[in-house]
Amino acid sequence: MAVTMRRDSEKPMYLQIKEALQSGIVGGSIPSGTRLPSSRRLARDLEVSRITVTNAFEELQADGLVQGDPRRGVFVLPLWGTGMRAAEAAAGSEPKWQELLDNDPILDGEGGRSDPLLPARNGDLIPFNVLRHDLDAMPVKEFDSALRGVLREEGGAALDYGTPEGHLPLRQTLAQYLRRLGIRTEAEEVIIASGAQQAIDLLCQALVQPGGIVIVEEPTYSGALRTFRIRRARIMGVPMDSEGMRTDILGQILERESPQLIYTIPTFHNPTGVVMSAARRKELVTLAHEHGVPVLEDDYMREIRFGSPIPQPLAAFDRHGDVIHVGTFSKSLMPTLRLGYSVARGQLRERLIALKRGADLCSSNLMQMALCRYLASGATQKHWRRVSLLCRRRQSAMIAALRRHFPEEARWSVVDGGFVMWVSLPPGTSVSRLRRESLEAGVNFAPGEIFFVEPSDQGFTRLGFAAVSEGQIERGVRVLGQLIRSQMTGPTGVSPSSVSKRKGGVQRQSIELREQQGGRP
Amino acid sequence: MAVTMRRDSEKPMYLQIKEALQSGIVGGSIPSGTRLPSSRRLARDLEVSRITVTNAFEELQADGLVQGDPRRGVFVLPLWGTGMRAAEAAAGSEPKWQELLDNDPILDGEGGRSDPLLPARNGDLIPFNVLRHDLDAMPVKEFDSALRGVLREEGGAALDYGTPEGHLPLRQTLAQYLRRLGIRTEAEEVIIASGAQQAIDLLCQALVQPGGIVIVEEPTYSGALRTFRIRRARIMGVPMDSEGMRTDILGQILERESPQLIYTIPTFHNPTGVVMSAARRKELVTLAHEHGVPVLEDDYMREIRFGSPIPQPLAAFDRHGDVIHVGTFSKSLMPTLRLGYSVARGQLRERLIALKRGADLCSSNLMQMALCRYLASGATQKHWRRVSLLCRRRQSAMIAALRRHFPEEARWSVVDGGFVMWVSLPPGTSVSRLRRESLEAGVNFAPGEIFFVEPSDQGFTRLGFAAVSEGQIERGVRVLGQLIRSQMTGPTGVSPSSVSKRKGGVQRQSIELREQQGGRP
Repeated sequence: MAVTMRRDSEKPMYLQIKEALQSGIVGGSIPSGTRLPSSRRLARDLEVSRITVTNAFEELQADGLVQGDPRRGVFVLPLWGTGMRAAEAAAGSEPKWQELLDNDPILDGEGGRSDPLLPARNGDLIPFNVLRHDLDAMPVKEFDSALRGVLREEGGAALDYGTPEGHLPLRQTLAQYLRRLGIRTEAEEVIIASGAQQAIDLLCQALVQPGGIVIVEEPTYSGALRTFRIRRARIMGVPMDSEGMRTDILGQILERESPQLIYTIPTFHNPTGVVMSAARRKELVTLAHEHGVPVLEDDYMREIRFGSPIPQPLAAFDRHGDVIHVGTFSKSLMPTLRLGYSVARGQLRERLIALKRGADLCSSNLMQMALCRYLASGATQKHWRRVSLLCRRRQSAMIAALRRHFPEEARWSVVDGGFVMWVSLPPGTSVSRLRRESLEAGVNFAPGEIFFVEPSDQGFTRLGFAAVSEGQIERGVRVLGQLIRSQMTGPTGVSPSSVSKRKGGVQRQSIELREQQGGRP
Repeated sequence: MAVTMRRDSEKPMYLQIKEALQSGIVGGSIPSGTRLPSSRRLARDLEVSRITVTNAFEELQADGLVQGDPRRGVFVLPLWGTGMRAAEAAAGSEPKWQELLDNDPILDGEGGRSDPLLPARNGDLIPFNVLRHDLDAMPVKEFDSALRGVLREEGGAALDYGTPEGHLPLRQTLAQYLRRLGIRTEAEEVIIASGAQQAIDLLCQALVQPGGIVIVEEPTYSGALRTFRIRRARIMGVPMDSEGMRTDILGQILERESPQLIYTIPTFHNPTGVVMSAARRKELVTLAHEHGVPVLEDDYMREIRFGSPIPQPLAAFDRHGDVIHVGTFSKSLMPTLRLGYSVARGQLRERLIALKRGADLCSSNLMQMALCRYLASGATQKHWRRVSLLCRRRQSAMIAALRRHFPEEARWSVVDGGFVMWVSLPPGTSVSRLRRESLEAGVNFAPGEIFFVEPSDQGFTRLGFAAVSEGQIERGVRVLGQLIRSQMTGPTGVSPSSVSKRKGGVQRQSIELREQQGGRP
């Protein structure tokens, strides 16, 4: 029985001996019933002190792997747990309780499916599916500098637990930022979350009972739909037009139903890119107040803008405290922060803090301090400007490529900010077939159906232009264009003029999409 | 109307102008109906181009603050939202839906109450209440170095989104670490969470229906109780002795009830410090398997040990996949990581990933990469050894101080690892009174009642020795001792011999606490 020691290792000798013997026992090379060498002999052979060996033996005994005492002898016990399980697993036995975990269509349908919005794991696909700018534009140096500054000045305190509501200086900085946007708030009301995603989840838990109604734009952010489904909400979609949510239709819904939450993305709506007009914002807050329904404003992407001016946040139009403003820096700065915030008052604020504590205690102190420092440096303004210009260029490149390569029946929105365009394919195009073929051809995109309350192929795709070079845009759009055309005229016999029924027979959404010719994009 | 410009600012001029005017409008110094100066005049006065001024006006119009055109004149509109709300708030009106948020005893009792386990906000209290080592012992330099190495080598990729299951190299490193502990697992089964807290929350959601039964040791970690309550579980406590959970009593419970989860902290149990013996671990997994109940092993504190050897994790004794091993580096490394992990297989694994995605999408890529690098460097072993020795010294100091200052009726556990001791006060001591008085006297501690399923004063306190200097230990324990004695013999007339009924008439738990004399602590 060979026990290899490394004297230069960080690991104490007794632990090395213990682990070497454990490997042998668990692996089977030191079978049950074997008598281990005496501690005196092993100490001599390994050139260590006897106490080192007896410490190792004691550890093995505490683990239930050996039994005995150094005088009479130490014997290897039959294996328990380790080693046995491989055989059991091979036999295919699973605990009874695992078999019960297959009866929930929401939880048990979700996990296995890969997320079309994440970069694909295999190979180099042109990533039109992601909603971020490209990794080269990430503010690595500035954030590195912020982190180091924090560690230097705060030391161990930066590595400690934080409070559930979050780091106060960050909340003060955010409150200032929000006030400049026209939202009347103070640090007390700004509650940090681990990203806007967590804010949405906690607010849903705070406001919506299982079976309660959440009203959303249709289409809307797939991650929010997922969270609402997990919380067992009933989701109702309101159509949109070029001004945003159809508040006239919302008004009709509010006459008949008693929703517990309205979820809206008024600025650079995901996935359509639409900006809700100031007039519609006023209508929305008026309706919400009349009917006593809180509104979650997901202001996830404000600072990356390169078109027409955008209205103030919905929360700035809110006279009565019905709007819960949620923001994040995942998109405009970097996703790894996992930091977002809600503006919450009164009893909702208390509930939110209680839920935060139960969910994950607090967000990272180090990240909050570093973000605070980075925001205070003013360098973020420059970053937003730089990324905005980059995005404007790339959207132009994508529009040019779409014009060149997509059939004329295709339509797309020209956005004033953000990272994505919402593209409507020619009638009859199967998006799922397109995606299958495009993945094989090296191009990824977000299939439109995931953004609908009842997922259905309505011929939409979301194309991200921010994370790709202009060369990739040209190549990727060309490939997609070819694949779309081959569906229209290819061997399957589908021609542009035939009207084909979509899966599930869902009526096609009539979102008016602007297509601008020249001028300001 | 003064508009102060800063030409050296990062902020574009048109935005400065816009914000200056906005402040005036919102603040009231530029009242509704005011006609703004013409763009030509303002441009001349401010020495900027006219387009700069018109851009500023357009922004204000998009916000609904002004109306008009540069030819006829731009007029300030009546305020909407901002400014009005102050008046409304003063009038005390709150949205209808806020009034409904007051009917949930769990969510609406929680938030307002400050958490006794967080450092107090005001002033310098000796923090016996926290469960961590002191901030000076945090591995600031090593982690700073790991962060910088990651940013240097990975650049933007470190700042991107991660997958819901977590960074693969970290999961591989953890799987290796777990295998060395005797748990047969692979990277596929290791699912990252935002701390052990989130792992507990997500696993509870995956396994326990509202109203379903969770079995816990009694007492147990207060944060877990909180999470189980928020998830509406029915919690049943099993008493402990010096070997850990009373598995005989567990067996009786399992005969009559159908719990959906058993939650256990077998190593350095929080708050008692007890280590479950290998024999009990075997009994627990046997019972769990017989009755088809999954067991969540919270292995939150393994590496800080300085006493007798500890058995392998519960999961190493598990032959059938009934144990879900949860770990974290919050205690043994640093809380700010917000990184923990579960070992999950089969359908549970799928559910866990689905819930993780809905909860906060993913944990921080940067933190995971930095932790991976730090673990791989081997420097963690040294850190654990250093902190363990520190804790051993400090426990000794606390035991000495307890012997000196506490009445002889007090009892305490001597722990083999971790950061806290569980102290039983003389019969009749009111812990809430003690805490009130000790906070005034500058000493904080964790009141025992928060660790019980039905919070009740049973005369216990949890004292942390790891986050305080030996001087603070001496001072703090002396203060507590004085306050306890003053309760026993003070003006209230309570004497050591009188048997006083505890609040709510709960029987006192008979946990056998060892008190060792000399020898290995």
